[in-house]
Amino acid sequence: MRAGAIQAMERPLEAHNFSGGPGALPAAMLETAREALMEAPGQHLSVLGISHRSDWFREVLDEAEGHIRALLELPDEYHVLLLQGGSTLQFSMVPLALLHGPPHPAQYLHTGYWSGKAIAEARRIGPVEVVWSGEVEGFRRLPAQERLPLDAQAAYFHYVSNETVEGLQFPDVPGREDVLRVADMSSDFLSQALDARRFCLIYAHAQKNLGPSGVVVVIVREDVLARAPDGLPSMLDYRPHAAARSIYNTPPVFAIYVTMLVLRWLREEIGGLEAMEGINRAKAAMLYAAIDESGGFYRGRAAVEARSRMNVVFGLASSALEACFLEEARGEGLFGLEGHRTIGGLRASLYNAVTLDSVEVLCDFMRDFRSRHGRDGA
Amino acid sequence: MRAGAIQAMERPLEAHNFSGGPGALPAAMLETAREALMEAPGQHLSVLGISHRSDWFREVLDEAEGHIRALLELPDEYHVLLLQGGSTLQFSMVPLALLHGPPHPAQYLHTGYWSGKAIAEARRIGPVEVVWSGEVEGFRRLPAQERLPLDAQAAYFHYVSNETVEGLQFPDVPGREDVLRVADMSSDFLSQALDARRFCLIYAHAQKNLGPSGVVVVIVREDVLARAPDGLPSMLDYRPHAAARSIYNTPPVFAIYVTMLVLRWLREEIGGLEAMEGINRAKAAMLYAAIDESGGFYRGRAAVEARSRMNVVFGLASSALEACFLEEARGEGLFGLEGHRTIGGLRASLYNAVTLDSVEVLCDFMRDFRSRHGRDGA
Repeated sequence: MRAGAIQAMERPLEAHNFSGGPGALPAAMLETAREALMEAPGQHLSVLGISHRSDWFREVLDEAEGHIRALLELPDEYHVLLLQGGSTLQFSMVPLALLHGPPHPAQYLHTGYWSGKAIAEARRIGPVEVVWSGEVEGFRRLPAQERLPLDAQAAYFHYVSNETVEGLQFPDVPGREDVLRVADMSSDFLSQALDARRFCLIYAHAQKNLGPSGVVVVIVREDVLARAPDGLPSMLDYRPHAAARSIYNTPPVFAIYVTMLVLRWLREEIGGLEAMEGINRAKAAMLYAAIDESGGFYRGRAAVEARSRMNVVFGLASSALEACFLEEARGEGLFGLEGHRTIGGLRASLYNAVTLDSVEVLCDFMRDFRSRHGRDGA
Repeated sequence: MRAGAIQAMERPLEAHNFSGGPGALPAAMLETAREALMEAPGQHLSVLGISHRSDWFREVLDEAEGHIRALLELPDEYHVLLLQGGSTLQFSMVPLALLHGPPHPAQYLHTGYWSGKAIAEARRIGPVEVVWSGEVEGFRRLPAQERLPLDAQAAYFHYVSNETVEGLQFPDVPGREDVLRVADMSSDFLSQALDARRFCLIYAHAQKNLGPSGVVVVIVREDVLARAPDGLPSMLDYRPHAAARSIYNTPPVFAIYVTMLVLRWLREEIGGLEAMEGINRAKAAMLYAAIDESGGFYRGRAAVEARSRMNVVFGLASSALEACFLEEARGEGLFGLEGHRTIGGLRASLYNAVTLDSVEVLCDFMRDFRSRHGRDGA
């Protein structure tokens, strides 16, 4: 047994999970999932060993889809799919569906690490025009909508609503209303109110706000399916998935079950997207205040108007001090505060399941840490 | 609450899971997985909310890979990958890697439902020659190796080692030693001894013998990677997955963790592939004996020499009697005995985690059912 495990038994901690993803999940939901590991409700079998063709699992899928439809007030012309391969596979599936031989390129915004990945994959499929890039500035701000050279003839327009690595989030929906709008909402889907009807396609992997890794939600309008070319690998074609209502092949049963539980929690315990947005705004406001009031001890990375409510990215004066911060934080039960491996620094992710209490504990720790390590501390 | 759930509380059953997949998992492993839902060992966080970039998860992946390497005595020239998308995505990834513009087609055997799916997907990518098909006979037997018109110039040779739907399993490895051999082993991987060095690529989704749905094991030799063309969607290219050692994008953390636990069980509790094969042979022998001794009451579907040890497919004189069998079986705690929805009938899947005791209970039930419903019963 390793030292960490021994320490854990000697001194149980109340853990607070600020991981960038897979992230925190609601505690009550974990207990239900635990019971289902022994027996899916009324099924005599573990949720891990139950057929994906069972009536029980069809009901799980239907409930998950129903919650998403209700939360977003989705019209019938949208399909709700639960697929594998994460958002990374969507980076390819979107252009495979929409970028086959049109004369006009797709227009993409390059606002951070993840939109960069989406652009690279789309370019393997067809012509892509990057209409704005924050790369030379190190992705610290977002473009002003009125200055974007948006083309009414574009095959489609793609953006990432929240850049998880750099901590940038669009306060409004960019793009033209007369062009197909596609968004990667992996890290802020269902964290706030949303008019989904302004999009032809939204995708979001589960492991930020919705559930465990291994499943991605795709909301796709009927006219996108009608545009898809024939001859695609079936798994990369939205049509067979839509026709089979997310059971084209064996789906990730447990990940979908947990996602359904989280959606049920969001709708029934939290009360929907407006309520969730209110909580998320309060959490982010509290943490950014702790940064802004620190007199430069904590340094927010993003321009204030582009700050993400989901991923608060900040730093300290030196990487040595950041390492000290992380170690002390872990000792207090505050986990997952490392910045993304590509840029370092610190990051607190405040996904739906992170409670206001956890953010308070973090802010208290930050004030205490500053009092002990800041030049003007205490 | 539905009637089924009430009944379950009134009369708890010892459940026996004969599902075709997702299938049974070892009971002790479920308890460990349950604990990890609350806290991954020594990590303070739920396995569902822990970073896939954590040292802990890297150790989980390394252990899973290590067990597979040890069980199969795999040389270093093979990569062991744990991917998403199931075997269905492999139906496309294999030809994308190996069927790009060669003058000679790939040769496929069409031995049942799943090889038919593999063939249809490969044909979307490149030229495919079906060198044998059991379709007109309703997939009741397998080809004799010496009669197959195998081409030394074939791009590769593909077969499905066990046809889950029809209950057919190759007793030997077909194909030429001088042609790249690819096998879909989804439903019998690690159920028996195997000389993996005779294959350039083996794939197997987890939900039969290895774990829950949502993860597929791919064993791929280095020279396959070297042949892959550039420009593939990254998620469909084995090379980035191999370079990132199965963490190219966020993997299905929980499904991989459970798979690792099952692999540990197979190696440490069961004692490896020879021991597992011995148990599986005993289970299948017992059940086929119950069928063969029934005087035609139970009717095996496959030719005797092609019988699967994993999926015992059989029927009764009428579908009404089969429905009665299934209902009575469920009442005795025997679940998942429906045949595949495409062919109906009955099927008992005897994956690694199904115990000899469970098969005994099934055989006892079958004898009893026959004594009550057979013309010459009792």
